[in-house]
Amino acid sequence: MAPTKKAGVLGATGSVGQKFILLLSEHPEFELYKLGASSRSAGKAYKDAVKWRQTATIPELAQNLVVVDCKSSEFADCDVVFSGLDADVAGDIEKEFSENGLVVISNAKNYRRVPDVPLVVPLVNTSHLDVISRRIKAANEQNLPKSKRGYIICNSNCSTAGLVVPLGALMEKFGPISTVTVTTMQAISGGGFSPGVPGFDILDNVIPFISGEEEKLEWETKKILGNVGDDDTFVPLSDMKVSAQCNRVAVTDGHLECVSMAFASDKKPSLEQVKQALRDFRSEVQVLNCASAPKQAIHVLEENDRPQPRLDRDRDSGYAVSVGRIREDPVLDFKFVVLSHNTVIGAAGSGILIAETLLGRGLL
Amino acid sequence: MAPTKKAGVLGATGSVGQKFILLLSEHPEFELYKLGASSRSAGKAYKDAVKWRQTATIPELAQNLVVVDCKSSEFADCDVVFSGLDADVAGDIEKEFSENGLVVISNAKNYRRVPDVPLVVPLVNTSHLDVISRRIKAANEQNLPKSKRGYIICNSNCSTAGLVVPLGALMEKFGPISTVTVTTMQAISGGGFSPGVPGFDILDNVIPFISGEEEKLEWETKKILGNVGDDDTFVPLSDMKVSAQCNRVAVTDGHLECVSMAFASDKKPSLEQVKQALRDFRSEVQVLNCASAPKQAIHVLEENDRPQPRLDRDRDSGYAVSVGRIREDPVLDFKFVVLSHNTVIGAAGSGILIAETLLGRGLL
Amino acid sequence: MAPTKKAGVLGATGSVGQKFILLLSEHPEFELYKLGASSRSAGKAYKDAVKWRQTATIPELAQNLVVVDCKSSEFADCDVVFSGLDADVAGDIEKEFSENGLVVISNAKNYRRVPDVPLVVPLVNTSHLDVISRRIKAANEQNLPKSKRGYIICNSNCSTAGLVVPLGALMEKFGPISTVTVTTMQAISGGGFSPGVPGFDILDNVIPFISGEEEKLEWETKKILGNVGDDDTFVPLSDMKVSAQCNRVAVTDGHLECVSMAFASDKKPSLEQVKQALRDFRSEVQVLNCASAPKQAIHVLEENDRPQPRLDRDRDSGYAVSVGRIREDPVLDFKFVVLSHNTVIGAAGSGILIAETLLGRGLL
Amino acid sequence: MAPTKKAGVLGATGSVGQKFILLLSEHPEFELYKLGASSRSAGKAYKDAVKWRQTATIPELAQNLVVVDCKSSEFADCDVVFSGLDADVAGDIEKEFSENGLVVISNAKNYRRVPDVPLVVPLVNTSHLDVISRRIKAANEQNLPKSKRGYIICNSNCSTAGLVVPLGALMEKFGPISTVTVTTMQAISGGGFSPGVPGFDILDNVIPFISGEEEKLEWETKKILGNVGDDDTFVPLSDMKVSAQCNRVAVTDGHLECVSMAFASDKKPSLEQVKQALRDFRSEVQVLNCASAPKQAIHVLEENDRPQPRLDRDRDSGYAVSVGRIREDPVLDFKFVVLSHNTVIGAAGSGILIAETLLGRGLL
Repeated sequence: MAPTKKAGVLGATGSVGQKFILLLSEHPEFELYKLGASSRSAGKAYKDAVKWRQTATIPELAQNLVVVDCKSSEFADCDVVFSGLDADVAGDIEKEFSENGLVVISNAKNYRRVPDVPLVVPLVNTSHLDVISRRIKAANEQNLPKSKRGYIICNSNCSTAGLVVPLGALMEKFGPISTVTVTTMQAISGGGFSPGVPGFDILDNVIPFISGEEEKLEWETKKILGNVGDDDTFVPLSDMKVSAQCNRVAVTDGHLECVSMAFASDKKPSLEQVKQALRDFRSEVQVLNCASAPKQAIHVLEENDRPQPRLDRDRDSGYAVSVGRIREDPVLDFKFVVLSHNTVIGAAGSGILIAETLLGRGLL
Repeated sequence: MAPTKKAGVLGATGSVGQKFILLLSEHPEFELYKLGASSRSAGKAYKDAVKWRQTATIPELAQNLVVVDCKSSEFADCDVVFSGLDADVAGDIEKEFSENGLVVISNAKNYRRVPDVPLVVPLVNTSHLDVISRRIKAANEQNLPKSKRGYIICNSNCSTAGLVVPLGALMEKFGPISTVTVTTMQAISGGGFSPGVPGFDILDNVIPFISGEEEKLEWETKKILGNVGDDDTFVPLSDMKVSAQCNRVAVTDGHLECVSMAFASDKKPSLEQVKQALRDFRSEVQVLNCASAPKQAIHVLEENDRPQPRLDRDRDSGYAVSVGRIREDPVLDFKFVVLSHNTVIGAAGSGILIAETLLGRGLL
Repeated sequence: MAPTKKAGVLGATGSVGQKFILLLSEHPEFELYKLGASSRSAGKAYKDAVKWRQTATIPELAQNLVVVDCKSSEFADCDVVFSGLDADVAGDIEKEFSENGLVVISNAKNYRRVPDVPLVVPLVNTSHLDVISRRIKAANEQNLPKSKRGYIICNSNCSTAGLVVPLGALMEKFGPISTVTVTTMQAISGGGFSPGVPGFDILDNVIPFISGEEEKLEWETKKILGNVGDDDTFVPLSDMKVSAQCNRVAVTDGHLECVSMAFASDKKPSLEQVKQALRDFRSEVQVLNCASAPKQAIHVLEENDRPQPRLDRDRDSGYAVSVGRIREDPVLDFKFVVLSHNTVIGAAGSGILIAETLLGRGLL
Repeated sequence: MAPTKKAGVLGATGSVGQKFILLLSEHPEFELYKLGASSRSAGKAYKDAVKWRQTATIPELAQNLVVVDCKSSEFADCDVVFSGLDADVAGDIEKEFSENGLVVISNAKNYRRVPDVPLVVPLVNTSHLDVISRRIKAANEQNLPKSKRGYIICNSNCSTAGLVVPLGALMEKFGPISTVTVTTMQAISGGGFSPGVPGFDILDNVIPFISGEEEKLEWETKKILGNVGDDDTFVPLSDMKVSAQCNRVAVTDGHLECVSMAFASDKKPSLEQVKQALRDFRSEVQVLNCASAPKQAIHVLEENDRPQPRLDRDRDSGYAVSVGRIREDPVLDFKFVVLSHNTVIGAAGSGILIAETLLGRGLL
């Protein structure tokens, strides 16, 4: 089956861009069609422009693609554009793309808090894409030209993506969650490549701080698990309390998070019910049979020392999350450990799954 | 000043034993006098019996000390005996020692939960040693022979030692604490040497489980911060809720812990008051001017990315704890990060400080 | 295509055994048929007997295989038996197997130096298997019963496997090599799992010693690159000088080796000829189209900072070796860096390729 | 004893500069007097200008020193100036300093190859400072003003410093060395701090390349072990062959090097003589009783797995080197492993010892 949809990648030489290219290079539906990067790289063959840091080699079809500038005119033929741009440039570029009719799925933080921009973790809240469905329907009714049909969808911060999957599964089954405390141990690949976390800082060490991370984790969780208002804007949960402590540890890939949580209702599920709800959880990407959807959204591990980043991050190719050590909590209701692959379900892979959902819904 | 008190070390070839030897080898008051280990080592010069793993070389005066069996008769001349024995042998040996009149300060877990055995983190609850003072006074009054004057004092688990110092300081100033949640990131030296944590398990990884650790951390905290009953037994706090999640990370030394806590009282101190209370905290070991007492018991760090294990674990030679990132918590009252050197204040050094306190009080 | 040959694995719960199971679980020709381990494990389902440490999950078809004792009677139906046994038990067990008619391909060191046992690195010296071909032909002529047709083939030590591939390629093209010096930086997975290299020993450290490793590397190289004598015994090269220095570094998988070498002949190839010879090198496993044969036996990398263990160890699924930094040497003729995946081409994968060669030659 | 000589530090905020400050802050003879850095830092208190990365805290007396520009006029009162400048700025600044009468001891590579600039590893070739002695004597005779008395002395590259100590000791005892091959495993602190080696590059990895390092190691060794010509210029050894392969490993501090070497003479010492020569080696800094001189210049370790970076790098506070695994070499004469602390004897500490030698000789 040859891919039928043309995909562009912005920030193609960066760490997230490289991951987009890997994931797209063998994708059954999306064709790696355009690569955009800074003017320093534009005009070069991709293999000459990039400092490639992935364990897989550069996909052959990417090697000689000529990198272009991040201008919408260069990407006019694309059905979807994946943005791995850094926040300092993503704002202007993504705006210019969406205002010129392009569908942008962004890993950058810039538009995540905009009330009418969906912030989507595809295993959890693809229901937020209903807003896009309605917008497209309206555009069809109004016969809007392509140039008026651009929009931005954001995926979440990497540490948020892991947290909200089990929380979303539990809310779906047992109703509102009142309280969440989470301490993260995050991989250095989340810090980017150029230069990212200095080796001298992280070897034989833990850094108990990641700039802006706790705020993102606390806020994004409330929007993702929140509701859609009457005017199709997103309404973060106001009565859920979330407290995050974020740490960087000497791990290449995979964010591990120790979570405690309490339900709003006094009627608590049992420990076994909690486990079963996580095991049973099924997301729209699975229902739609999306190409990259994990077979199992949440792997519930029963061994007492799992999940571990090195052993479990690649379950379902990094598109699933793993939850272990589920137990009752002396302070809140339950506590557990969740692991997610920060550059797959926590970043580029999340963008791919969002696009696959749009495609599965017939919106691309 | 030549040392005046004779000290023995049990489990002298193990990881805690090695640390005891290092700390005692230059001690102004304790003379490294007897080394006990398993029968496999007994009879050998220490340097031939030990697989030394410290960054400092074997102290000269220990090198040729002949290792003896762990029998009280071998240690009869000792004023104090430090036990670094593993739990599987510590129970019987320490019992035999104390029943034959020896003062045993133990790093093993075996007697920590015994109601009349003091469990002491010397920066926090040396007040629990009052029980010993009273016992000795009674023994004096009864003219008991030396053989009836043995006793055991336990130091805490390594992860507990870091946690209770700031908690103790805050309780002292602001009254009871109702709730504590703590997630630890613990160094591999805490897992011992033979073989300890396998390298293949910890490299590029986090292990979200340490056997028995969460129970110890949750329970010991309540005894250490608890009270002495009328019958001179220790009464753990019954109304403090503590929830721990313990992880092993790729760090050689230094346990980092992310803590959230709430006071029992509705009258909360301000953030600045909390910091000031930690800065001002002064423990009995400082008042007594103990030889190993830290100048500053709690280092309050204001940089947003501290404390870090590699950079801060050696403050005051590992006898102090460092607290940073103190801030208000959306769920409980305050959250912060605490770092302690797990083999100094968290193990052998704690034992030394306990002995120094006994000496300072005139009890040895 | 369903597998047609029954395969057994000895030492199935160990690190090499686990890798054999992973590699065989999806093999087109070999069926994972019998798992042998110590009597402690025998009788249990494999998933209950093993402490699984691979990043991939336990293959489904292995999970419920019942582990048996390592006796030839249990493996009588097997066409080939792969041994991942530790050296302390491999000697007796492999002997008993081969004396009872089984074909044993062993990762243990016990029989490597036996003059009539082939020591085979499958990218290099499958020609040594001619001895087996002749032996089988003779057995056929004599109509020997199956019980007389057992034999042992050894694969090499893990660090040897990487070294001999480029050396073999260069010898094939440019004639004898007189001198080799090699310094290795070896991954901890090479040290096994139970417990293997202690984490406290290897973190922030290098251990400049691996017991027996230098002797193996120096000696095995001469046998593998050596000749077959008239009596079908193997004759190690006597006039090649090899000097090895072996180090353990904090890497999970992948042995990196810095090599300098000189040709015996005064007529030296040019640098470009050396590179071309490595690029052009083609081994019998490729010619036979063995199922696991790498597409490219030697990847010649031109980037100045490659190969690197984490980025290059998985080329051709770990069945290829990577050579980089090829340059002239001020002391000998040329120097370069070679990387090999120590648990694939350096251990279990090597065994698999040997069996595939036997199969390709019609000897199984 | 109060320090009597005023010392300046150039590049005070960088990694080498920080180490100079640590070493000088408690120095008995040198007073930390002036700190120079880039104009971005000039005018600020040192504690506000620096991103401090040492495990010891910022020395109190440095904290509030106001950083100045790197102009000789600012340092006019200094008796000696230590330069930890990066190579891209060191050339101009050190020239301006020396041309204005200042004594500059530089860690930068810029002037190391200048024929009349001494390149000194203080445990090995302080005899090269005789050139400075003669120059000062001549200046005295000519009554030259201070402004004409400036000069530069370079310390070596970090990996060179470890190698030449045992080589120098062996040459001193047994005469010329004909051949040296060395493979290094170098710590990341050698790559500097801002940002230095990226964590994502070095974790679970080895990088078999350090830009310019092999050339430095091969060339500097010949100058340091070389002679002084009639015109007081330095004459590198022309008939010693040195081949280096340099690797970066996941170690914080301490360069480990695997060395093979051959003597020029056919009359070889025995293995025991080699060991004894290394043990007996005594350098001028020891004879002069320099404040930082190691008690033992070369620690000869007999354990088969030593030296190790984490366990042995701090011997004699990092001013000594450790040599282990000394054995005969099948290719050259002898092989061994040498460890040196790359930021002490391999960088800042080397500069301090050079200054102490000048002081001990009465030249400052």
